[in-house]
Amino acid sequence: MDIKKVIVTGRMYKDLEKLALMDTKREYKFLPEAEVSSNDFDWADGYVAFKPTDSFHFGKLQWVHTLGAGVDSFLFNREWKKDVLLTRTVGSFGRKISEYCLSYILADVQRHGIFQQYQTERQWLPSQQKLLQQLNIVIFGTGTIGEEVARMLRTFGVTVYGVSRSGASNCHFNRVLPITEVHDLLALADWVINTLPLTPITEGLFEMRLLSCMHGAGFINVGRGASVDENALIEAIERGSVRRAVLDVFREEPLPAQSPFWSHPNVVITPHISAVTGLDEAIDSLLAVLGEMDSGQERISNSVDVNRGY
Amino acid sequence: MDIKKVIVTGRMYKDLEKLALMDTKREYKFLPEAEVSSNDFDWADGYVAFKPTDSFHFGKLQWVHTLGAGVDSFLFNREWKKDVLLTRTVGSFGRKISEYCLSYILADVQRHGIFQQYQTERQWLPSQQKLLQQLNIVIFGTGTIGEEVARMLRTFGVTVYGVSRSGASNCHFNRVLPITEVHDLLALADWVINTLPLTPITEGLFEMRLLSCMHGAGFINVGRGASVDENALIEAIERGSVRRAVLDVFREEPLPAQSPFWSHPNVVITPHISAVTGLDEAIDSLLAVLGEMDSGQERISNSVDVNRGY
Repeated sequence: MDIKKVIVTGRMYKDLEKLALMDTKREYKFLPEAEVSSNDFDWADGYVAFKPTDSFHFGKLQWVHTLGAGVDSFLFNREWKKDVLLTRTVGSFGRKISEYCLSYILADVQRHGIFQQYQTERQWLPSQQKLLQQLNIVIFGTGTIGEEVARMLRTFGVTVYGVSRSGASNCHFNRVLPITEVHDLLALADWVINTLPLTPITEGLFEMRLLSCMHGAGFINVGRGASVDENALIEAIERGSVRRAVLDVFREEPLPAQSPFWSHPNVVITPHISAVTGLDEAIDSLLAVLGEMDSGQERISNSVDVNRGY
Repeated sequence: MDIKKVIVTGRMYKDLEKLALMDTKREYKFLPEAEVSSNDFDWADGYVAFKPTDSFHFGKLQWVHTLGAGVDSFLFNREWKKDVLLTRTVGSFGRKISEYCLSYILADVQRHGIFQQYQTERQWLPSQQKLLQQLNIVIFGTGTIGEEVARMLRTFGVTVYGVSRSGASNCHFNRVLPITEVHDLLALADWVINTLPLTPITEGLFEMRLLSCMHGAGFINVGRGASVDENALIEAIERGSVRRAVLDVFREEPLPAQSPFWSHPNVVITPHISAVTGLDEAIDSLLAVLGEMDSGQERISNSVDVNRGY
């Protein structure tokens, strides 16, 4: 694939300008999203961004590269032009999301909130915490991110179950089940973590019936907000099948001010920060893709299966 | 060593009664601390407890076993009778303290407090967190507990420095320094963790001069409270050389209601719970010591060097 002209946009566009010095083979345009015009797509054969701009159309594009790990903004509920290559950034997302998840699981196991409350009351009330090795954790998604979370949790002796479309076994999990057979397992879970990409299959996956299978589990969403029925989640928390929720992603972002999540005592909200793309890894990942294209490699490592949607 | 009569006291004494069924070779008395009389020490040759009772004297004792990991309640500022064997519980303390420390380090790195604040304000303010691999952490104490904390942190890529009396190298640390040479290192530390036992050498170790060497480090004390000059610590926090303190142990416990720590915004207080002895590990550890004594083993594995004080 011979890429000569590339548009780079999104929050990093300024910092990415140094790309033009590192890759002199191509012509680059670095623009804020609002300044990318429809004409630019008739000029460029490559587009690098977190998501399509409002002006986006395939035009002369042969290649699209996303600066994040997720590709749903390009594929979900949109038409893709079959001969356009889609590649994505693969960086330290797995590691970042692992540390994010672990931080909230450990804060819960170590009763940070309870001891904080005791401190304000000047109360000295010792109690005994669990160790992580006593926990069962179910991870939806056994891709690079789910795998990394599983690997890290197992170094602490956690029993980790994976859930995937196929249920194919994976050495980083104690056991992997297909999505269709997960209901009994959820009753045993201390925590359930969603790392799934957004696709037609995962949209609304966490609805009332599935959430009701949990018996007081904590729920962490680091996948996509649209995989969760938000009203059902609130109800599941009220009923106690979900003990608490830690949510980094939402159906609408930023989370609207009127969302009941904001003030719910059993919900933790973070503003989609569990895996922010760093500048260095954005550049490394992009240069790796360009390098593979330039060397004529047939199958680009970080290319996306647009039919599968991830 | 031939032990025939054993006093068992402390908060677990009731639960430990099953020992009498598991070890029929010996006669046991299980008593609450207040009911252990001076005469009991003229009856018993063994004493099992977290600390000496007010009535404690060596009497006919040949052996003392502590149910916790620390032995300072028996040795620090007290006379020890030279021919009495002192053994201690070795259980999952290292693992428990590792998870305790990691929980507070991760909650800080992942900005739990900041996002909690934003949530109450319904503010969506993304930011990027560090990964643990970007941190330098200094651990005072390279014994079984310090070692376990170091080993765990290094699985996340943390650069871990150890501090010990001798400075002898240890494979679980990137580098070990003697206490006397630690001052420059402290300036680089993101976190400083104290796991040291209380001995005449470690009493008051964290005084103004040492604390002033830190440049905004977090400080975790899971060793002993008396190793810290509490007024100096407050001052170091006010001056910013210590950014925040997570304290599980104090000079006086329970922490007195008038302590300025309770209400300090940069201090987290937990009630000496980072490594609570579990019943099963107390029994396992005790039976292991008794087994070694019964088999005539010369050097009991979990015996304490009373001259060194740990």
